[in-house]
Amino acid sequence: MSHRVVIVGAGFGGLFAARALRRAPVEVTVVDRTNHHLFQPLLYQMATGVLAEGDIAPPIREVLRRQDNARVVLGDVVDIDLAARELTLDCQGTSSTVPYDSLIVAAGAAQSYFGHDEFAEHAPGLKTLDDALALRARIFGAFEMAELESDPERRAAWLTFVVVGAGPTGVELAGQIAELSRRGLRRNFRTFEPADARVILVEGAEHVLAPFPAPLRERARRDLERVGVEVRLHTTVTGVDADGLDVTAGRIEARTKIWAAGVQASPLGATLATRSGAPTDSAGRVAVRPDCTLPGHPEVFVVGDLMSLDHLPGVAEVAMQSGTHAARTVVRRLRGDVRERRFRYHDLGTMATIARFRAVASIGRLRMTGVAAWLLWLFVHLLFLTGHKNRIAAVANWAVAFLGRARPQRAINGVEASDLFATVRRR
Amino acid sequence: MSHRVVIVGAGFGGLFAARALRRAPVEVTVVDRTNHHLFQPLLYQMATGVLAEGDIAPPIREVLRRQDNARVVLGDVVDIDLAARELTLDCQGTSSTVPYDSLIVAAGAAQSYFGHDEFAEHAPGLKTLDDALALRARIFGAFEMAELESDPERRAAWLTFVVVGAGPTGVELAGQIAELSRRGLRRNFRTFEPADARVILVEGAEHVLAPFPAPLRERARRDLERVGVEVRLHTTVTGVDADGLDVTAGRIEARTKIWAAGVQASPLGATLATRSGAPTDSAGRVAVRPDCTLPGHPEVFVVGDLMSLDHLPGVAEVAMQSGTHAARTVVRRLRGDVRERRFRYHDLGTMATIARFRAVASIGRLRMTGVAAWLLWLFVHLLFLTGHKNRIAAVANWAVAFLGRARPQRAINGVEASDLFATVRRR
Repeated sequence: MSHRVVIVGAGFGGLFAARALRRAPVEVTVVDRTNHHLFQPLLYQMATGVLAEGDIAPPIREVLRRQDNARVVLGDVVDIDLAARELTLDCQGTSSTVPYDSLIVAAGAAQSYFGHDEFAEHAPGLKTLDDALALRARIFGAFEMAELESDPERRAAWLTFVVVGAGPTGVELAGQIAELSRRGLRRNFRTFEPADARVILVEGAEHVLAPFPAPLRERARRDLERVGVEVRLHTTVTGVDADGLDVTAGRIEARTKIWAAGVQASPLGATLATRSGAPTDSAGRVAVRPDCTLPGHPEVFVVGDLMSLDHLPGVAEVAMQSGTHAARTVVRRLRGDVRERRFRYHDLGTMATIARFRAVASIGRLRMTGVAAWLLWLFVHLLFLTGHKNRIAAVANWAVAFLGRARPQRAINGVEASDLFATVRRR
Repeated sequence: MSHRVVIVGAGFGGLFAARALRRAPVEVTVVDRTNHHLFQPLLYQMATGVLAEGDIAPPIREVLRRQDNARVVLGDVVDIDLAARELTLDCQGTSSTVPYDSLIVAAGAAQSYFGHDEFAEHAPGLKTLDDALALRARIFGAFEMAELESDPERRAAWLTFVVVGAGPTGVELAGQIAELSRRGLRRNFRTFEPADARVILVEGAEHVLAPFPAPLRERARRDLERVGVEVRLHTTVTGVDADGLDVTAGRIEARTKIWAAGVQASPLGATLATRSGAPTDSAGRVAVRPDCTLPGHPEVFVVGDLMSLDHLPGVAEVAMQSGTHAARTVVRRLRGDVRERRFRYHDLGTMATIARFRAVASIGRLRMTGVAAWLLWLFVHLLFLTGHKNRIAAVANWAVAFLGRARPQRAINGVEASDLFATVRRR
């Protein structure tokens, strides 16, 4: 019987691990709670009506269809037995066990509210397809409600959007909402001008895009202000309710709040830590050995956002490279090479897009801004979507949104007027 | 103050009425429970993963953005006061009233279970965007469950799809599920061959596509069987449960059942009938005068699927033409012409598509089948989507599905494995 590799999670880490095993003499099982991979860096475009679900969420089975040594299993991992080397899965109430010889855990991270989970009800995050659909309903629904509201103060609260956290997701989301109100919804309303909507980006630190080089952070802040985003730095959120939020500088009346401020590792991190005695960091990520393995369990790899190693950031590139590293380590061992090989991250650079034709990019010593950075962003994202059948539909949606002004995907799900804002699912 | 025309419903009837009033000296208010028009004839393609929501659901405001005399209001009509000439609306728990001088009610129809509403839980219908997303989750989810199931009988039940009702929606849906299993999912599974899935089309009458001319009905039945659909005529459903359904000829074990057998007019039909004394037919449609007005209330028009007149069928073309007729009558009256003008329906023909390259069409005396009818179907639907910004994304999705084999939109919403089949919303 061939060596069984089980991969938990079909995000960037899990999929890259699976692909790296395609010619290996192993049986690969990919377990995920959903039927799709999710191109998370473009989730904010789904939430703001540019892209459709299928554009950023290819079915895992479709991605792996030609990889005969891989199978895909839908299920929630409810336990990991490190001694017996098996997982317990649940799918639709039916429990099953999946044994492994090597395990690659790439279960990712969810939103973190830094101990204020009660904020989640009024300030949902943006991590899953459902989050994006719910947020889309809230954003477009807020404009609908503003059209119905005759009281100027209450209308202004419907037309105020607050994004908490100025990392790439927060910056991109704030920029897109500003563009949406200034271009996308033009002439759509009769009782107000959508361009009067306020978009406020709240950040506790002193910069937007903290990990970027200083000139790019400054340029990003200026670009955000140019497209109409109010940037409030050194500002911490102390309370969130249905009507607005309290920040250190006072009160903001805003019906729509979005949380993009932090991440919390999957609960599987805690499971692994409890079972193995490995420490976790403050975000619940598992401290791994330099080769991405769980201390004391060289057959178990933890990669991507769930991994704590060398203070690496929780970005797609780290997940891809650490997933690949884990897979290659499995292959090397099967060939008899059991030396511990350190995972070395090659930083290919980072970029963030602020709005149409405005982005910042940092690649090695190269710094790019404006249209050039935006075109690079577009090119890189098109390359990434290459493996993906629905690329042409994504490009079509982009053409409509970037060259025209309309947002192709504005339909509100869970759509009846009576439950417009009831579409956020809690897990 | 100009004449106030209120239109209830932004389906084909309501939107065509609004557009026909674009140069009239009136104030138009379009009320709908959702933020989008819905291109219902393509809903089955959304349920089977070909199209995205935005492709068939343009925002009502976007459609009417350049029509300065029209405004759009999101809300549920909870009452109609014919004496005071005003509607009561509810949106998110806030009640408001909308006065009218002329009222055009185009509220459409929902699924009918012919007195067996308990069938709905296990055999959902296909009338709204949410229905289509829920059905997509059930269809793709059934294949996921089959992959997990080791018992052959239970697996066979997951791979059996029953469509009840062989009108155009039922025929198109059955054909698409068959194509999906035979082409779209090829090489996606490891424990079974998706092409082994059974698709059963159950119909109480003696023909599929009853309103079509006999040779086309026969051709459609043969085409369905060629793409792998089992057609069971003279078969009535007597019971539906989670595991299957009981029909007059016995029992079918099938986890996925879809109801496409009948329609029931919007409850606003009953409201209008109670308030005015007008009779309704067995489907709850309001019997109107020959000019589509409510008896005794010439200022109130009932059009589309909610209207009972001359045994006209509940198809998009009737809704468009009756909506336009109502709008033109309002305009004529404002010019002083108050003669009652009979609504005359011009039948432009009907078509139904069975699968890729297979359709039937009947236009006047012309009968078309096969590739020619399919190309005509494609051409007509592209024409219809012309007013619609997202046409190019729809075409891109079609290209992927028809020229390639993949289904671009397969992501399951409400997606966690633990609530895969909990996504059907009840209203």
